[in-house]
Amino acid sequence: MSYATGNLVIVGLGLIGGSLAKALRQSGFSQRFIGYGHREPSLQRGVELGVIDEFTLDLDEAVERADIMVICTPTLTAGRLLEKILPRLSGRSGGPIVTDVASVKGCLRDTAITVSGSMPPQLVLGHPIAGSEHSGVDASSAELFVNHRVILTPVAGNDSEAVELVRAMWVSAGADVVDMTVEQHDAVLSATSHLPHVLAYALVDALSSSEDSDEIFRCAAGGFRDFTRIASSDPAMWRDIAIANRTALLKSIDLFSEHLNRLRGCVQDQNAEELLDTFTRAKQARDAFAAILAQRIEPKAP
Amino acid sequence: MSYATGNLVIVGLGLIGGSLAKALRQSGFSQRFIGYGHREPSLQRGVELGVIDEFTLDLDEAVERADIMVICTPTLTAGRLLEKILPRLSGRSGGPIVTDVASVKGCLRDTAITVSGSMPPQLVLGHPIAGSEHSGVDASSAELFVNHRVILTPVAGNDSEAVELVRAMWVSAGADVVDMTVEQHDAVLSATSHLPHVLAYALVDALSSSEDSDEIFRCAAGGFRDFTRIASSDPAMWRDIAIANRTALLKSIDLFSEHLNRLRGCVQDQNAEELLDTFTRAKQARDAFAAILAQRIEPKAP
Repeated sequence: MSYATGNLVIVGLGLIGGSLAKALRQSGFSQRFIGYGHREPSLQRGVELGVIDEFTLDLDEAVERADIMVICTPTLTAGRLLEKILPRLSGRSGGPIVTDVASVKGCLRDTAITVSGSMPPQLVLGHPIAGSEHSGVDASSAELFVNHRVILTPVAGNDSEAVELVRAMWVSAGADVVDMTVEQHDAVLSATSHLPHVLAYALVDALSSSEDSDEIFRCAAGGFRDFTRIASSDPAMWRDIAIANRTALLKSIDLFSEHLNRLRGCVQDQNAEELLDTFTRAKQARDAFAAILAQRIEPKAP
Repeated sequence: MSYATGNLVIVGLGLIGGSLAKALRQSGFSQRFIGYGHREPSLQRGVELGVIDEFTLDLDEAVERADIMVICTPTLTAGRLLEKILPRLSGRSGGPIVTDVASVKGCLRDTAITVSGSMPPQLVLGHPIAGSEHSGVDASSAELFVNHRVILTPVAGNDSEAVELVRAMWVSAGADVVDMTVEQHDAVLSATSHLPHVLAYALVDALSSSEDSDEIFRCAAGGFRDFTRIASSDPAMWRDIAIANRTALLKSIDLFSEHLNRLRGCVQDQNAEELLDTFTRAKQARDAFAAILAQRIEPKAP
C-alpha cells in the first residue's frame, strides 16, 4: 500500500497542530493544510495567519479529502474523535493515515480496538514531547519540534508503510523519532511528566491548606517557583491525563512514595550516611539528565 | 547599650558573605571588612577582589576586632562556630554583635543556650532567602539581597538594640526584613524549601532506580528539568539541613503524603470532580504565589 501526502488535515488547531502545519509547510512535506474542528474563530485565525490554507467544520469532508489526518487534541477528546473518525475509514483503501499527539496511548489503542474490532492498519499513535507555556495557534512555531523527541507506538496490525510515513512526517518537522510499546510509553510519561504534575499539585495544595500559608508563600523563592511551575498547568487537561493513564500513574506514585518513606525514615533516625548516599546518587542522575537535555535542546552547531 | 558598626567580620567567605560585604561597603554601613576562616586561598581571593580589606585565621583576633560578626556558613558549621565563639563573648560588654545566615534556626538557638546557659543578648539569628546556582566569593554580588526577604528570629533575652542593628544591616543591603519566631521560621522553610528538596531527591532517586531509567531520562523535557533542578543541589548541605530541621521536616513530609494519598485515591477511583477541584485550587494558589514573587524580585520601577 502506498500513501499520498498532498492534503494534511489538522484536527484541533492549537499550538501543536499549528506548529506542525508550519513546520511541514516549510519542509514541503505536504502541499495543502486543512483545518477541521468545531471552533470556527480559531480555524479562521489559522487561515489569516497562513498556518492552514482552508478549513471545514464537516467531518465527512475532512476525512474524504485527507491524505494524512493528525488529531492534535488532548487525550480524552482524541478518544472521542477516534470514535467518530474510525467508522468512516472502514472499507476505504489507500488513505487517510490517522495519527495523534496525545499524552496517553493505551486508552486510545483500546478505544480504537473497541470501535474497529482490531487495530486499524492506518492508525499510528504518536506523541511529541514538546510544548510551551503558551497555547493556541497564535503561539505556533515551525521550530517547536526541532531536536525534540517524538515517540511512536506502532502495534501489531499497523501497516508498516503507514508507520514509516508518520515517522517521515515528524522527521520532516525536525524531530528525533523513537519507537516504544504502548505500555512503555505510558510508563515513561507517567514517570517523567504525569507523576511530577501530581506531586506539584499535591505540594501546592498541601501548603495552601496549612495555617501558615500566607507566610509560606511570602517566603518562598526561586527554587520553589521552579519546582511548582507545572502546578500552574491546565487543571482539566491534567485531570484527564491522570484518569486516562491511571494504571501507570498509580505505579509511579507508589514507587515514589516508597522512596519518600525511605528518606523520611533516614530523617527520623538521623541516618546521615544514607541521606548523603541517596542525595548524592540523585544529584548524579539529575546532573547527567541535565547534560543530555542541554545537548538535545540547544541549537545544533552549524 | 549601643554598638559600633566600624569593623564587620565575615566568618566563611563565600557567595553569601562576599555579597553581604560588597553590599555593605557600597552602602557605607561598615568601614572595614575582615574575613575569618580556615581556608586561606579563598580569603586571599577575597582581598584580591576587594571584597574584604584583610583577613585573619585567628578566632581570638577576629572576635577582638569585630563590631559585628556574621557567620556565613551552612547550618551545622554555624553551630560548631557558635560553640567556639560564644565562650569568647562572655564578660564583654558592647560588642561584637553576632548574627548568621543559616537555613535552620532552632538548632542554633539550642546550641547557643546550651553553650551560654541562656540566650546571649547580642546573638541575633537570621536567614536571608537568597542564593544563586553559583557559589564562592567570585560569584558574589552587591545586588544579591536587593528586594529579597531576610527573616530575623529574635528571642526573649535578645538585646533590642542588637536586633535593630542587625535589621539595619540587612536593610542597608537592600533586603526586605521580617521577624518570625524560631519555630515559625523552621516550619515555613521546611515547607517551601526543605520539603521540595527532599521530594526532588526522592523523585530522581526513584526514577533512576527503575528498569526504564535510561528511556525515562531520555524522554524527559523542560517541565521535568525545572521540577528536578533542586535535586542538583549540594548533597552534604542538604543532608545537614534535613537533620538539623528534622522535627519540622517530618511534619511537612507527613502533610504532603496525606495530600498525595488523597490524590492517589482520586486517580484510583476515577474521581474526576475531586481531581479537578484539587488541581484548580492548587493552580490558583500557585498563580497567586508567582504573581507575588514576580512583584518582589523584579526590579522596582524608578
